[in-house]
Amino acid sequence: MSSVLVLGAGKSAGYLIDYLLDWCRKVGFELHIADLNTDHLRQLKSEYSFVQLYTAKLDDTEVLRSIIAGKQLVVSMLPAFMHPVVAKICVEHKSHLATASYESPEMRTLSADVQQNGLIFLNECGLDPGLDHMSAMRIIHALQSDGEQITAFHSYCGGLVAEACLADNPWKYKFSWNPRNVVLAGQSTARYLENGQIKLKPYHRLFAESTQHVINNTHYDGYPNRDSLSYQETYGLNNVETLVRGTLRHSGYCSAWNFLLQLGLTDDSVQFPVKPGMTYRDYIEAFLPSTNESTESKLQRVSGFSELNMQKLQWLGLLNEEPIHSHGGSPAEILQALLEKRWELKPDDRDLVVMQHIIESIDSNGKKHTCYSDLQVEGTDNRRTAMAKTVGLPLAIGVRMILEKKVAQPGLHIPISKEWYTEILTELEEKYQIRFSERTI
Amino acid sequence: MSSVLVLGAGKSAGYLIDYLLDWCRKVGFELHIADLNTDHLRQLKSEYSFVQLYTAKLDDTEVLRSIIAGKQLVVSMLPAFMHPVVAKICVEHKSHLATASYESPEMRTLSADVQQNGLIFLNECGLDPGLDHMSAMRIIHALQSDGEQITAFHSYCGGLVAEACLADNPWKYKFSWNPRNVVLAGQSTARYLENGQIKLKPYHRLFAESTQHVINNTHYDGYPNRDSLSYQETYGLNNVETLVRGTLRHSGYCSAWNFLLQLGLTDDSVQFPVKPGMTYRDYIEAFLPSTNESTESKLQRVSGFSELNMQKLQWLGLLNEEPIHSHGGSPAEILQALLEKRWELKPDDRDLVVMQHIIESIDSNGKKHTCYSDLQVEGTDNRRTAMAKTVGLPLAIGVRMILEKKVAQPGLHIPISKEWYTEILTELEEKYQIRFSERTI
Repeated sequence: MSSVLVLGAGKSAGYLIDYLLDWCRKVGFELHIADLNTDHLRQLKSEYSFVQLYTAKLDDTEVLRSIIAGKQLVVSMLPAFMHPVVAKICVEHKSHLATASYESPEMRTLSADVQQNGLIFLNECGLDPGLDHMSAMRIIHALQSDGEQITAFHSYCGGLVAEACLADNPWKYKFSWNPRNVVLAGQSTARYLENGQIKLKPYHRLFAESTQHVINNTHYDGYPNRDSLSYQETYGLNNVETLVRGTLRHSGYCSAWNFLLQLGLTDDSVQFPVKPGMTYRDYIEAFLPSTNESTESKLQRVSGFSELNMQKLQWLGLLNEEPIHSHGGSPAEILQALLEKRWELKPDDRDLVVMQHIIESIDSNGKKHTCYSDLQVEGTDNRRTAMAKTVGLPLAIGVRMILEKKVAQPGLHIPISKEWYTEILTELEEKYQIRFSERTI
Repeated sequence: MSSVLVLGAGKSAGYLIDYLLDWCRKVGFELHIADLNTDHLRQLKSEYSFVQLYTAKLDDTEVLRSIIAGKQLVVSMLPAFMHPVVAKICVEHKSHLATASYESPEMRTLSADVQQNGLIFLNECGLDPGLDHMSAMRIIHALQSDGEQITAFHSYCGGLVAEACLADNPWKYKFSWNPRNVVLAGQSTARYLENGQIKLKPYHRLFAESTQHVINNTHYDGYPNRDSLSYQETYGLNNVETLVRGTLRHSGYCSAWNFLLQLGLTDDSVQFPVKPGMTYRDYIEAFLPSTNESTESKLQRVSGFSELNMQKLQWLGLLNEEPIHSHGGSPAEILQALLEKRWELKPDDRDLVVMQHIIESIDSNGKKHTCYSDLQVEGTDNRRTAMAKTVGLPLAIGVRMILEKKVAQPGLHIPISKEWYTEILTELEEKYQIRFSERTI
């Protein structure tokens, strides 16, 4: 019997597994699911005879090899760094592969093998990367076929929390995604294109100079991602003058984060040994000169005066006489440990995914147009999150399309071509109300 | 016949080789010198029968092994990363070793082998590390034997150029040492002790908050080195409240360097592709927003207003319509290529080595004292540099002491004990006028 294998069945795989359960039942495929912990899936197994579970450590290549053997397709929700190993085993066993991670250089070295074996390896088919590509390419192709020339492309995405769940949180932020990545965000100089020139923005200026965005009457800050330049080729935007991909946060976040950054609290290059009993207030003094002023007035001097940002710092407890919840580590690690308590997603919290493309073009009459394409998806609770939905469903639909042989050409794919995005976006809109609102002015 | 081997005979080995020539002649040792290029040493060889040259690539382990075999002692002026390999071969061939580089963790793993073979491996016996240790320890030991308790220790060192040779250079800086290290200086958070607290200062604040120093009526800026904490143990300063080791530049340098840093020009984490014909003025725009203002007014806004710093930027040619001398690279690499032209040491330029210790103590009556110990050494020309002198002579004297069996205890050494520093400092003072001026207030 034909079978699909899902590697990694954590919180973010819920929607993916539900979709595949439904589809496998219809077409008579087996659904195999592997994770270190599969307790939460036992009921599925007892309910559905075509479900098979593997409880295993998936960082062991031999274990992976034995689980992958004989599967038509492998969907990997494992951390991205494991995908080259998974991909090699898929080539060995002639299994298709689908992931929501970036197509890495290591993955690209397998391209010829994948083609020769008639396989499809679909990467970047989640939210970001994934939905961002698909929704952008639909607009880009439509404009191009109308004879418009695209002059500027801005695309921003954020994994946030619904404002209604943030009433008591002045940062308007909780972790709906990997905390370490949030704390280290932007720690490499950003590279993008603006008015025909390559621009570089170093980390210490990244959050100070955020852009302002409005999606569905809510205000957001945006900052550029690490490298936007490669998307010029990916998206076929050879004559574009401006190309920026970035990250969204609720309004006010970037200025406050910059306050922490300027101080040095996000640094990951050095270790700070926390002495027993040391409080957060003592710790903050490590980043300030030893003068006789109050901690508060030194803070304002070093990080730049802002009453609002001081309040946010206070709300985190960074000025409290409370012992540090850490035995030391880098400043980034010490900050992360605190934030994981203060920015914890509660069971009733609804996360929020927002995305915005702003695409400027000139028509054949020389008239300029700007297209705004906005997406806003709210989660239901901290299990059925918008993140799991917007990552899992595009990937699940991609999996179905591979197995239904909707895409003919074997090889490495990312969903930037019509044959992928039309079907995926249409199904997301019609069945799941994941819908971009577009307006052109 | 007994022989000493010098590995690496570049510009900085001149004083070392002269000293060893003299000593070897007196005691009847052979002096062997190995480098990729030994043309400049041919005259030595024809003049002195006890000199032997090896022209060889010294990054080849087998070559090193064959050259080191049979030598009593090896002095290495090779780059520090090669010292672990050299040290292992010295153990194999039972040769003593002397270097002016930091005693690395790899070096420490050889400690037992070195001792068992009755060898001495002397590291950190140059200028910084080297003279800094020796001159500091002489004061520390003297204060401690007077019953004083040391409360604060500041030690700064700089490899600069004599002010008289900088009349037309507003930066008051030229490269007398590795340019890449100068451009990347401070790119890890600095860690030091101040008033009993560990302090961290991130890169983006390092040059903005420099300290001010006066040595022999000349003003200098200082900024803390990467990690001062480990010196608490090295120097036996367990009860010290403040401990900072740092780097000196001529006054005004740090503020101007911070101007470049804030802009992003010292970044080494990202590549910038330079297009053919691109000018420095175009390049500077990569770090500025695309507004209609002049480059100059955007610069002032991003990096902070300073007429003096703007003049220094202009003097470098960063606002010129002159094509960039680089095919691209990181911003740090592009800046380095420019600085190597603008900050080139000319044949008549005299370099300058400055060092300052500021040591605070309390005597048994509770009275506070501050001891200032300053060193200033000027080079003669761009061949007989102060740097070569202050690195090479302490090392050469250390070599002589090892071979004359002045230090009994085999093992790894750095020159922080009386038996090393007394003889080395006395000889430097009496024969070479390398003399610290000390005053206590």
